[in-house]
Amino acid sequence: MSEKENNATPMGKLGKYGLIDHISGKIELQNRSTVKGIGDDAAVIDSNEGYTLVSTDLLLEGIHFNLIYTPLRHLGYKAVIRAISDIYAMNGTPEQLLIGLGISSRFMVEQIDEIITGAGLACNKYGVDLAGGDTTSSLTGLTISVTSLGNVEKTKLVRRDGAKPNQLLCVSGDLGAAYMGLQILEREKKLFEEDGHIQPDLTGYDYIIGRQLKPELPVEVLTKLKNAGISLTSMTDITEGLASDLIQLCKASGTGCRIFNKQIPIDFETSRAAEELNIDPLVPALNGGEDFEFLFTVPLEMYEKIKQISSVSVIGHMTEKGSGNYIVGADGSEVELTLPL
Amino acid sequence: MSEKENNATPMGKLGKYGLIDHISGKIELQNRSTVKGIGDDAAVIDSNEGYTLVSTDLLLEGIHFNLIYTPLRHLGYKAVIRAISDIYAMNGTPEQLLIGLGISSRFMVEQIDEIITGAGLACNKYGVDLAGGDTTSSLTGLTISVTSLGNVEKTKLVRRDGAKPNQLLCVSGDLGAAYMGLQILEREKKLFEEDGHIQPDLTGYDYIIGRQLKPELPVEVLTKLKNAGISLTSMTDITEGLASDLIQLCKASGTGCRIFNKQIPIDFETSRAAEELNIDPLVPALNGGEDFEFLFTVPLEMYEKIKQISSVSVIGHMTEKGSGNYIVGADGSEVELTLPL
Repeated sequence: MSEKENNATPMGKLGKYGLIDHISGKIELQNRSTVKGIGDDAAVIDSNEGYTLVSTDLLLEGIHFNLIYTPLRHLGYKAVIRAISDIYAMNGTPEQLLIGLGISSRFMVEQIDEIITGAGLACNKYGVDLAGGDTTSSLTGLTISVTSLGNVEKTKLVRRDGAKPNQLLCVSGDLGAAYMGLQILEREKKLFEEDGHIQPDLTGYDYIIGRQLKPELPVEVLTKLKNAGISLTSMTDITEGLASDLIQLCKASGTGCRIFNKQIPIDFETSRAAEELNIDPLVPALNGGEDFEFLFTVPLEMYEKIKQISSVSVIGHMTEKGSGNYIVGADGSEVELTLPL
Repeated sequence: MSEKENNATPMGKLGKYGLIDHISGKIELQNRSTVKGIGDDAAVIDSNEGYTLVSTDLLLEGIHFNLIYTPLRHLGYKAVIRAISDIYAMNGTPEQLLIGLGISSRFMVEQIDEIITGAGLACNKYGVDLAGGDTTSSLTGLTISVTSLGNVEKTKLVRRDGAKPNQLLCVSGDLGAAYMGLQILEREKKLFEEDGHIQPDLTGYDYIIGRQLKPELPVEVLTKLKNAGISLTSMTDITEGLASDLIQLCKASGTGCRIFNKQIPIDFETSRAAEELNIDPLVPALNGGEDFEFLFTVPLEMYEKIKQISSVSVIGHMTEKGSGNYIVGADGSEVELTLPL
């Protein structure tokens, strides 16, 4: 350890985004081909005719997945979804994927096959090539790195920093389902640990457990928007949770925002599971994460058009810089959105 | 765990390259832009005017580095070297880099700064932009993923599979130094653990410890070869060890090889440290790894030209497929090269 304790800043003080800001403040770009570096869903590289997009994610056992209730095939599938989501979130098309696997000796080859089979299924579904990677042994848990590459026409790139005050803030699909699916899986795991004879009862939770274990990307929504002639002014994917991802979008764009409690799309099954577990369904919708939906802005004039697109909800609008990021309750009360610690 | 024990194949049975073969057998490529997938130093992607090259590496605490004697700044530096080495090994120019960091809570922000500072120094030196990445918490050790991107003119790409029988097999620089540097660091660590008052004595080992802690890439050798009009028929970088990397090159090219014991370049300091520790210096040279040198083949007619290039050694030649991969001793004895377990 090269730093003295008395100069040290604990990681928790910065948080994930604080750390990324902190790091990116130290970086100077040198190459003309680097159009956009740290601070969006993917890096943007000029490849003359278009832009190459590239993004990387790190998935660690115990943090991003628990092998007790995550089938390895699903884990491989979800790793691919997570990686290519970043390419779609720049309005690009993913084409290649690289996977790095850190594998402890307790693993069997057949288990790695399951991960690769799952990854392959997702690659096939989304038209992506598994084009490379790395394998290494691991002394600790299973480690997965996924890097996705894609491309986009230069005029079609949608960045995180393009939103303007008064533009409409929209999300695809519904939110909080994957988180509630995880809570149900956790509950059944605990019951099983207390009494090994209890079989997990997951009936009635198909949708939310599916959203946790085998998420899909709402690519068809992006196609519908394009076909309707609706151009997006900014976009990101919802992986950390609506609140976090929205705050990042506002920060990048130099705006504030107001979203409306009532407009946040939450599936009935999500609400029901939340009620059972005594959780306000807004909590998973705002902070659950792993939704794999798209958060984007469109010009105000698009309101009539966007209303026609199924699976899209207008949840609020962008405001002037410095006016804060607020969620408005049914009673008109305003609460500031904050990053979860 | 989803597999029954009785069908299971332990990872050790396959080894790293066996696993990669096993995985790549399951992959079908879909996109026309994917020129070359798994099985070379980097994936090759058609970007119309040239090829985009991309490669990813995973570095795990306890496997790839030991924080007891690896300063974090050096760790960041070396991670970049490892990543961009793959791009040079395709005869490309690295331009962008993405870093993923999995960080346990015992880390301080200043320590992450050290890693990023080290990575930044390497990026500056080699003209690469740190263009993105991911950060996450880790329950176990420090995890680093590095993904590098670069490009190459289509006619200049040098793959691993281009070697032909009778072509000359060459390496840049010298081999085994990084491994012997590590052995010296390990020795001093043990002495320190036995008696906390002993200061590590690393005098006389500057070169080999430098090769372990702050490796550089012999990019100037590639420039010299180009300026001399020597075109390479195949190339890879030596990261796993000469034996492993050479076997991979022969396998990809569908050839055998013969290398000559006496021609393998070993620095005096490497030999001296090996003697002190009662190791045959050929062992680190063949199997040590982390040399960050280039292994390549050139046509036989280039012999006179290649002799003129300093820092390049002709170590043998390629043979017909099926004739095996052999190292020839001073007495003419032949030993088959094998992958270390």
